[in-house]
Amino acid sequence: MNSTTPQWLGWLKRYRRSLLAGDISAGVVVAMMMIPQGMAYAMVAGLPPVAGIYASIVPPLLYALFGSSMTQSVGPMAIIALMTAAALGPLAAPGSALYMVLAAQLALVTGVVLLVCGLLRIGFLANFFSRPVMSGFTIGSALVIAWGQLPALVGVALPPVRLSSLYLPIHLPIHLPSVLLGGGALVLLLAARVWLARLLRALGLGPGAATIGARLAPMAVVLGATVLVAWLDLAAAGVKTTGAVPAGLPGLNLALSHGHWRALLQPALLIAFMVFLISMSAAQTLALKRQEKLHSNLELIGLGAANLGSALSGAFPVTGSMSRSAVNFSAGANTPLASVITALLLAFALVAPTGWLALLPLPVLAATIIVAVLGMLELATLRTALRYDRGDALALVATAGGVLALGVEAGVVIGVVLSMGTLIWRASRPHIVVLGRIAGTEHFRDIERYPGDTAPGLLLLRIDAGLFFGNVDAVKARIDEELAAHSTHCATRHLVLVLSAVNAIDTSALFGLTELNALLRQRAIKLHLAEVKGPVLDRLKTSDLLVTLNGKVFLSAAMAWDELANELANELATQA
Amino acid sequence: MNSTTPQWLGWLKRYRRSLLAGDISAGVVVAMMMIPQGMAYAMVAGLPPVAGIYASIVPPLLYALFGSSMTQSVGPMAIIALMTAAALGPLAAPGSALYMVLAAQLALVTGVVLLVCGLLRIGFLANFFSRPVMSGFTIGSALVIAWGQLPALVGVALPPVRLSSLYLPIHLPIHLPSVLLGGGALVLLLAARVWLARLLRALGLGPGAATIGARLAPMAVVLGATVLVAWLDLAAAGVKTTGAVPAGLPGLNLALSHGHWRALLQPALLIAFMVFLISMSAAQTLALKRQEKLHSNLELIGLGAANLGSALSGAFPVTGSMSRSAVNFSAGANTPLASVITALLLAFALVAPTGWLALLPLPVLAATIIVAVLGMLELATLRTALRYDRGDALALVATAGGVLALGVEAGVVIGVVLSMGTLIWRASRPHIVVLGRIAGTEHFRDIERYPGDTAPGLLLLRIDAGLFFGNVDAVKARIDEELAAHSTHCATRHLVLVLSAVNAIDTSALFGLTELNALLRQRAIKLHLAEVKGPVLDRLKTSDLLVTLNGKVFLSAAMAWDELANELANELATQA
Repeated sequence: MNSTTPQWLGWLKRYRRSLLAGDISAGVVVAMMMIPQGMAYAMVAGLPPVAGIYASIVPPLLYALFGSSMTQSVGPMAIIALMTAAALGPLAAPGSALYMVLAAQLALVTGVVLLVCGLLRIGFLANFFSRPVMSGFTIGSALVIAWGQLPALVGVALPPVRLSSLYLPIHLPIHLPSVLLGGGALVLLLAARVWLARLLRALGLGPGAATIGARLAPMAVVLGATVLVAWLDLAAAGVKTTGAVPAGLPGLNLALSHGHWRALLQPALLIAFMVFLISMSAAQTLALKRQEKLHSNLELIGLGAANLGSALSGAFPVTGSMSRSAVNFSAGANTPLASVITALLLAFALVAPTGWLALLPLPVLAATIIVAVLGMLELATLRTALRYDRGDALALVATAGGVLALGVEAGVVIGVVLSMGTLIWRASRPHIVVLGRIAGTEHFRDIERYPGDTAPGLLLLRIDAGLFFGNVDAVKARIDEELAAHSTHCATRHLVLVLSAVNAIDTSALFGLTELNALLRQRAIKLHLAEVKGPVLDRLKTSDLLVTLNGKVFLSAAMAWDELANELANELATQA
Repeated sequence: MNSTTPQWLGWLKRYRRSLLAGDISAGVVVAMMMIPQGMAYAMVAGLPPVAGIYASIVPPLLYALFGSSMTQSVGPMAIIALMTAAALGPLAAPGSALYMVLAAQLALVTGVVLLVCGLLRIGFLANFFSRPVMSGFTIGSALVIAWGQLPALVGVALPPVRLSSLYLPIHLPIHLPSVLLGGGALVLLLAARVWLARLLRALGLGPGAATIGARLAPMAVVLGATVLVAWLDLAAAGVKTTGAVPAGLPGLNLALSHGHWRALLQPALLIAFMVFLISMSAAQTLALKRQEKLHSNLELIGLGAANLGSALSGAFPVTGSMSRSAVNFSAGANTPLASVITALLLAFALVAPTGWLALLPLPVLAATIIVAVLGMLELATLRTALRYDRGDALALVATAGGVLALGVEAGVVIGVVLSMGTLIWRASRPHIVVLGRIAGTEHFRDIERYPGDTAPGLLLLRIDAGLFFGNVDAVKARIDEELAAHSTHCATRHLVLVLSAVNAIDTSALFGLTELNALLRQRAIKLHLAEVKGPVLDRLKTSDLLVTLNGKVFLSAAMAWDELANELANELATQA
């Protein structure tokens, strides 16, 4: 479905019956995946497991109304759950009534931030993170999440999920039945991850169905473990379970803490940024596969509405998730109807008797989290970056290290700083070459790479970068160096900047060029420009630079050479 | 003096006697300028006036040892003083002993940050501020400083210099003698600013000497006012004066507050950033004028040492100042010896009887501050930006507004975010054009600007921007749009990306191209590259992209056209 003019509910107007089978199967598969996942991520966030189900009902319905991606699956997500725990940890004790109020309030502020960004149309802000930095952030967060689940896996009381839980006490009391259950689940899930899809294909399933079947392993393992707990009465033996889950749909939550608005604003800004970033990266991958057009500002509004919905359900911040959306897509989802079906099934699970949910063993949920986040530990980006660009590899490792050492919130800031830092660092080393004329042609090339003619008193420099505040001082310094090097035998009289590769000149660079022009005038060197691109020249015409320019603007380097070399030769002849 | 291989004290080894006269005259002029200025900026920082003199003795001596600029004048500066007040305001009451300890400690942490940055060689970080944003930051800070001096000007008790003093009480008690003195000084200084240089030239001074003479007006006005205070015994009438200045050189200050390290770190980071930024912009202007080479990492070390010196003198953070350095330069400074002479003269002023310093009237010092910061209110950048680039103009106004509304520390962060924001915003709208072949030539041009031939099934796109994380998604989206537009009549079979203007491809963009390649393969569209620049191609060869590329790499757009258009024609012929 190629929707080049998406609009709210546009997909419903264009709905065709042929799309229904895919949407239903995807809706069912994602619902089965979401029950253990939602509960597990609620644990990561430091909330009662049912909050994860609540977060999976109203938010996807609202996203279906306002979002622009057809196959995005919105709900709880590991990194956002970790950020929720990090934000609320200093404000309230996990499990307390205040903690739950603040979790919903955090979703509210996050939703408002996303909506405001969408209305201001500043979706481009997602581009503040480079891919390697995002990879490092994900790896760091995955390690923090997995480490944080170890106590639950070995059966001690559910710890406050904080970054300090990274420093696990060495003499951890271990509860044997829990360890056996959790460890068994871990082994099963890891085995399923490696072999289940292959096994299902060997049993005759198609490759798509086999992959989807393998994704349901967590649900199967959780169900099996629940049966085991009930059968052997493991709860009495001390295995922690989710405990009674209140039956019925989430009520309308209007509880707010008036004292905490300010404290929640900064984490909400960081969470909103990551919600958008994570959701966009999932949606973009799917949109390109489906040849859909994505509207980043509609995405912001869809995600904002989803988070408001989560707040009203008494849950916590939600986002679109790559892993879940990919399952949704592979299971056949054609439109947001798949998410509507998922939401309805989850609502039904809460209305139906929820007694069985009370017996879900926490060590097994912890195992599902650990295996799920292992999937986030991809090293392909690091490997590529190591070969392709050491600076990017360093940024990746530093971001992962930052998340581990300073926490997930600091990690976001570190990621932005490192993304921008590598950008500015590269800009501070501009590629500038001295041009020589290839004998007998109108071609000019880097004299370091090709033998070319140069003329005494005439220096042609090609600048291979757009000029902006990040590199203008470095460019000026390089020009000064090249002038000094070129003026050893004969004073330079003409400097021609060949701007064929300069795609833009910002205001800072305009000032830089204006100052350079004034200084060269004092030194009796004429500054000329050549091969200025159309849009750049149009823009320069609105400034004073071309009026005050000490030299001329030439269409080509060859025309500059012909005129200026001639002029210099004539002067020499006159002097002689 | 062209110092292409600067080294510590290199200037002293190369010293010639002919340089001495200039250095002495500059040293004297700057010392006379520095006495009122240093005391006034100490007031802005919320410190006793003598701290401003202390900050002008050891720091320039250390900078002379370690810095790389020949004419930089290091000492107190208005914006850094304001930032000092903003940093210390929440921690201690201005004038208290703790406040003074913390001011020196702030200089210590700032100095360490600068030294560490210098040793890590990360001077490029100064490029995080665009010129318009710096202009906005300066304008906002100047207004905050001037406003903060109003109470001192009208004679109420010296207020704590905080941002809250922006909200001046309306029923301000006014002290008439102070208002007359301060207002008179203000009028005189403004008149001197406008007419004194002209007057001095009319009296026969050369233009340089006249400008320098005009710069000494504050010293003259302060001296005159001091005489007036002594003569009319205005102190008894309630005019506040600096009060007794301890005679003698600053003692070695080793007082530290162990409880405040953490609280000082963040402000120190912001102050260190601005210290470097302000100092570099002054030094760069002078270095270009003098054809000197500046080493940003040596600058960091010089400024770091200067701030450590300020801490040991019991003063506050210092920086190189544009206005003072320009006076130093115009007054004839050839080497850091000028600053050494300034420092010695100031030290002498403290050793000589300091009784007269006690009578400097604070309203007059406030007037000198107000007139000094008026010079920072330059609107030329705003005017240029308004014509040249609205986005930059907006960033300027927003930064100034941010400083006024949220304070100078938040202003630094806002400035960085806006600089980077405009950069990323521009990147999110990449310039991409569809190329057509100019009939009968090998030239390809934008079909929107020139009539050119296109071939059905073959799309040539030229991307006019380096590819990096900030624009790769936008570029992919644009490519998808162009493909959709081009495929209306006839399915596109070949996409050629002409990369003649792509100066770099970062790791994020490499992944983006790899994904684009995979998706186009699924859609049976071949992806080709053409006119890839040498350094970009060299880099791409270290990745898998060229191996997995679905199409070919062509030297030129014309070669791609010849081969692919032929291939398409042959296929059509075979089908027919």
